[in-house]
Amino acid sequence: MAPILAENSKPNLPDGDNYVNNGFVNIKNPHLDLLSEDILYHFDLGTKTHDLPLMFGDVKFVCVGGSANRMRDFAVFIHKELGLEGDGNSITDICAGTDRYSMYKVGPVLSISHGMGVPSISIMLHELIKLLHHAKCRDVTIIRIGTSGGIGIEPGTVVITDTAVDAFFRPQFDQVILDKVVVRNTELHRELAENLLQCSTEIPDFPSIIGHTMCTYDFYEGQGRLDGALCSFSKEEKLEYLRKAYAAGVRNIEMESTVFAAMCHLCGLKAAVVCVTLLNRLEGDQISQSHNVLKEFQTRPQQLIAKFIKKQLGLCT
Amino acid sequence: MAPILAENSKPNLPDGDNYVNNGFVNIKNPHLDLLSEDILYHFDLGTKTHDLPLMFGDVKFVCVGGSANRMRDFAVFIHKELGLEGDGNSITDICAGTDRYSMYKVGPVLSISHGMGVPSISIMLHELIKLLHHAKCRDVTIIRIGTSGGIGIEPGTVVITDTAVDAFFRPQFDQVILDKVVVRNTELHRELAENLLQCSTEIPDFPSIIGHTMCTYDFYEGQGRLDGALCSFSKEEKLEYLRKAYAAGVRNIEMESTVFAAMCHLCGLKAAVVCVTLLNRLEGDQISQSHNVLKEFQTRPQQLIAKFIKKQLGLCT
Repeated sequence: MAPILAENSKPNLPDGDNYVNNGFVNIKNPHLDLLSEDILYHFDLGTKTHDLPLMFGDVKFVCVGGSANRMRDFAVFIHKELGLEGDGNSITDICAGTDRYSMYKVGPVLSISHGMGVPSISIMLHELIKLLHHAKCRDVTIIRIGTSGGIGIEPGTVVITDTAVDAFFRPQFDQVILDKVVVRNTELHRELAENLLQCSTEIPDFPSIIGHTMCTYDFYEGQGRLDGALCSFSKEEKLEYLRKAYAAGVRNIEMESTVFAAMCHLCGLKAAVVCVTLLNRLEGDQISQSHNVLKEFQTRPQQLIAKFIKKQLGLCT
Repeated sequence: MAPILAENSKPNLPDGDNYVNNGFVNIKNPHLDLLSEDILYHFDLGTKTHDLPLMFGDVKFVCVGGSANRMRDFAVFIHKELGLEGDGNSITDICAGTDRYSMYKVGPVLSISHGMGVPSISIMLHELIKLLHHAKCRDVTIIRIGTSGGIGIEPGTVVITDTAVDAFFRPQFDQVILDKVVVRNTELHRELAENLLQCSTEIPDFPSIIGHTMCTYDFYEGQGRLDGALCSFSKEEKLEYLRKAYAAGVRNIEMESTVFAAMCHLCGLKAAVVCVTLLNRLEGDQISQSHNVLKEFQTRPQQLIAKFIKKQLGLCT
């Protein structure tokens, strides 16, 4: 068995150590300055081929989500919400040279897709954090907006995560580094979560709560679903597991929050996870709501983030 | 710590238990038959909305790869190679209703993208295996074609995997199921790998080998890269780790092979992993070959699979 090391066990205070660096992101890699060129391979961007400070220097909000189409929709939506000039529909994908991720910039807002699962978002975050560093961005807030399965709450409820937990309900992310496992803190930024909850109360008919979010490596067996190609447990065992999760404070399940919380925390980025629940997993496994209902649910995190950004920019009260 | 259980420790013989079921895939889920409708959510397909046997019943070869563009290119390429009628360029995405995966069907060949990392390919495989089951497909061969980092071999070399190993060089995949960790076998189909190697010798200037493939959960720290946003080890420690991997038989590193091998093995699908190496990790971390060289490299697994499929179909010697 590999050695397990604890890392960064300090609590995530809003004004804690990780959030002071004149507002710049904290790159924690001494080798990076030795590179003559840094190629952000999965973005198809680089420090020699692109003027990153010019392209991204004014970014203050980064919104990330799994689906490329949804992050394009968000870019068009936020363009309209911010009342910017020009046609939001003509926004172009900055990462058009690759199909790994899509990226759109709308004023101070960057909208990026990250695919599904911890490894996919982790590659994106490494390159995004380097991009923000190279571009000399300051005081950046990053929010993951996504979909999730709820536990014991009404479908359509938006969960704002306080702490991401693993499949054993532990508030940690296990990062393999060479032949060691390093345990990382997965708390999200508390003040930001409370701010978002406050914003949500100002939107009519907007069910939202703060709770723990469980992050798994798999949608089927890993989330206790009975409808995958493989399933070795009974409905009773599944429900027992989900009830244990609920008792541990888990209100929704998705597949990216632990590594997102861990990396943002280490690099001093104020981070939040805002996911709508598409179903109540205590009731079933299949996502069978009508297309239109699901579509409306999926706009909820976007509405909340738009409200938050507009308040931050002084565009609304 | 969660209990760890071993599962399916039988060797993966070409004619082993898992490969007898009249050629049908082995769904290992007793609950599935109880569903009145099975919605393959991430494909935007379902048993009530689509005639899956009609759409997919003749599928014999499934090729999967990370990038949606590359799997479209493969579909166009294999259309031409098989000499099928009609315009290969007009092939449409069967999963156009979602941007999670792309899927193209060309005669008996299905070409599907799976995104990056274990969780992303795992969702696709659950739904693909159910699709093959619902469609009553028989004698299906599945091949992952991808890109990878090489260890101690020339960039451009194609590695055909015999066994996928984890970051500790163990031939296993750890699947979390409820609150347990189940250890799964990650051997690929030996006869298929040897068949593919034989095909490769028949293509001029085609460097290829059989070797172990290491599958990690992360592209940067998890693969010992010095150029991520986070790096806590020295160049010497990195090289020591990669040399240990080489000594353990690892010839390339990617991010999907363990779960792919484990799931295909359990469900009785003859499976292979064929990845080209884009760089030699003992020489560096950044993928800095020219665009054209990388593009040519990425066509190599496609060429090999086309050759293999044509031989299987009796279209070439």
